[in-house]
Amino acid sequence: MTLITLLTDFGTSDSYVAEVKGVLACHAAGVSVVDITHEISPGDIGAAAYVFGRAWHRFPPGTVHLVIVDPGVGTERAAIAFAAGGALFVGPDNGVLSSAFAHRPDQIVALALSPEAAPTFHGRDIFAPAAAALATGTPPSALGVPFPGSPVTRSLPEPHHEGKTLIGTVIYIDRFGNLVTNLTPAMVPSYATLEVEESLIGGLRRTFGDVPPGGLVAYTGSAGSVEIAVREGSAARRLGIGVGGRVRVRLG
Amino acid sequence: MTLITLLTDFGTSDSYVAEVKGVLACHAAGVSVVDITHEISPGDIGAAAYVFGRAWHRFPPGTVHLVIVDPGVGTERAAIAFAAGGALFVGPDNGVLSSAFAHRPDQIVALALSPEAAPTFHGRDIFAPAAAALATGTPPSALGVPFPGSPVTRSLPEPHHEGKTLIGTVIYIDRFGNLVTNLTPAMVPSYATLEVEESLIGGLRRTFGDVPPGGLVAYTGSAGSVEIAVREGSAARRLGIGVGGRVRVRLG
Amino acid sequence: MTLITLLTDFGTSDSYVAEVKGVLACHAAGVSVVDITHEISPGDIGAAAYVFGRAWHRFPPGTVHLVIVDPGVGTERAAIAFAAGGALFVGPDNGVLSSAFAHRPDQIVALALSPEAAPTFHGRDIFAPAAAALATGTPPSALGVPFPGSPVTRSLPEPHHEGKTLIGTVIYIDRFGNLVTNLTPAMVPSYATLEVEESLIGGLRRTFGDVPPGGLVAYTGSAGSVEIAVREGSAARRLGIGVGGRVRVRLG
Repeated sequence: MTLITLLTDFGTSDSYVAEVKGVLACHAAGVSVVDITHEISPGDIGAAAYVFGRAWHRFPPGTVHLVIVDPGVGTERAAIAFAAGGALFVGPDNGVLSSAFAHRPDQIVALALSPEAAPTFHGRDIFAPAAAALATGTPPSALGVPFPGSPVTRSLPEPHHEGKTLIGTVIYIDRFGNLVTNLTPAMVPSYATLEVEESLIGGLRRTFGDVPPGGLVAYTGSAGSVEIAVREGSAARRLGIGVGGRVRVRLG
Repeated sequence: MTLITLLTDFGTSDSYVAEVKGVLACHAAGVSVVDITHEISPGDIGAAAYVFGRAWHRFPPGTVHLVIVDPGVGTERAAIAFAAGGALFVGPDNGVLSSAFAHRPDQIVALALSPEAAPTFHGRDIFAPAAAALATGTPPSALGVPFPGSPVTRSLPEPHHEGKTLIGTVIYIDRFGNLVTNLTPAMVPSYATLEVEESLIGGLRRTFGDVPPGGLVAYTGSAGSVEIAVREGSAARRLGIGVGGRVRVRLG
Repeated sequence: MTLITLLTDFGTSDSYVAEVKGVLACHAAGVSVVDITHEISPGDIGAAAYVFGRAWHRFPPGTVHLVIVDPGVGTERAAIAFAAGGALFVGPDNGVLSSAFAHRPDQIVALALSPEAAPTFHGRDIFAPAAAALATGTPPSALGVPFPGSPVTRSLPEPHHEGKTLIGTVIYIDRFGNLVTNLTPAMVPSYATLEVEESLIGGLRRTFGDVPPGGLVAYTGSAGSVEIAVREGSAARRLGIGVGGRVRVRLG
């Protein structure tokens, strides 16, 4: 049975997610829908792109991934669909699907816009029918016309050197207050130490348990990049840092 | 495969939703359950009725809709089930199912109350077994006795005129802070302007994108009624208005 | 079709729950996953054990229950799996599965730890593959070695007497602010009255509806123990009491 994953910024208190799922159930009977999250802050394309990039490739080949974080709904931005990396993708052309572009997408399609679609709810009226069609075997090419040009692509900032210090960036903060950075473990040799603001984090450890409760710790996170945490606490709160904050790797 | 939708005010942090789903799984093996929401404020029948009214008719014919927003649990209020508009409904007789009554329900049934049911959790012990029975083909009439009289019905306030001004009401506020009103687009001719408190909203536009970020905008929402939003912001916060608040349509 | 229930402290705003579900879908095609909750406070084993204890036995025989509230992830604590009471269980050895131990578990197995598992995300890399294996018919014994000794077990505090007063304890507070105690109705004879701090609750009633809105009420909750609520309000807020707080039963 085909799966459809669903990631939105709709929250879970209104009817919006259910309206999308109702359309999916009508157009793709028996399909299973798996929520990635609906708690993206309204319009936060960066957070959505990060969370989506972590999650989608964990699902079986053939899964349809529907992403509706779409602050430009009803404007000129295109609605796109494509196959890449053995999966299928549907969403707005605003960069939220960037992680899939690295997997050599086939021809990207600009979805046909129905004049009956509510201008404020393309998720229900444009994207959901498209995802259901993909889940039932319709190829992306049947859903619209070839997308002209290149889709909007988000790329992460690259770490850079300032003297003997490598400067990384916090790219995401999770619900535990753990800081995800754009640093890879290979950028942090065993003799290096990490610092944030005035706080010394130390070298790279294996896991939270390697420091006492309340201690700051840097480690390789479960998505493969360097993270900073407080064991049984919140590094974001302790360090007073947000997305975009600087993490220094002292190399000498 | 039959679907059961589930709408409650249980929240998602306790075991209550899962206890209901466990009962559904026991009594209707293989059934798929789709959450509408569990984030209705405790006992807020008005919000539940609105959200439910938007969501249920998006699902395929034959879907069973189970609504458990039931501040009167354990009191004399009846538990009801019925077929209407091609779907099946189960919930308390407190108006939360009002949107279904417009679809010419068949005979409404008052569910038999088991003496073993926990007086504080009819959702698990009365409503869920009934919904599971409906999902496996049992007709409503087999679940109880004909409901005497009329069920409790909620109706929205009607807009009214004060001189050349039409007065509408905010009936729901969504997670984005958008104000849903009881006004239809037909009540807002092209020469009319909307006002809330001291703020001028202007005429009816197509979508958020028709005003700059931070701008106030009125438009036809995805459920067909007039809504007021702040693009990339919260109209509820900006205007300091809640459910029941007045929206003025200046007609001359 | 086999069900897998999932209870974590991951929250629902990050990718973590979806990563687990993706692994389950890859290893157990077509399995249905039912969320118990993901809103356990980070590392709150007591709350997780209570919620899990209420929920799991509502599900059909053969259900696989996966619990990932694991503040000791990456440390020496074992990962365990076993059959008990007709169901299957997977989780960390920290007491979170205690409610299942009363159901005469078969041999408990210590899961083999893959060296490739992310030290901070055994939920995805160790527990989820194990749960998927159980859901597809693999016996627990094939997933590791017999667990030496006894698993960590949490037990609730027992009520005790102080003179003619029985002292109970608040063991859980739900989203409505209802206080769940370790008292059973049999401990509260009809002539007894309950008190919390300076507030008189009165005797045991049947349900909320037996007192006026805003009234304090004690009743037998839907899990069989004595609870204290404020009708249409929060007893936790009214009484200023938390988990571990004392409830007095005046017996004379």
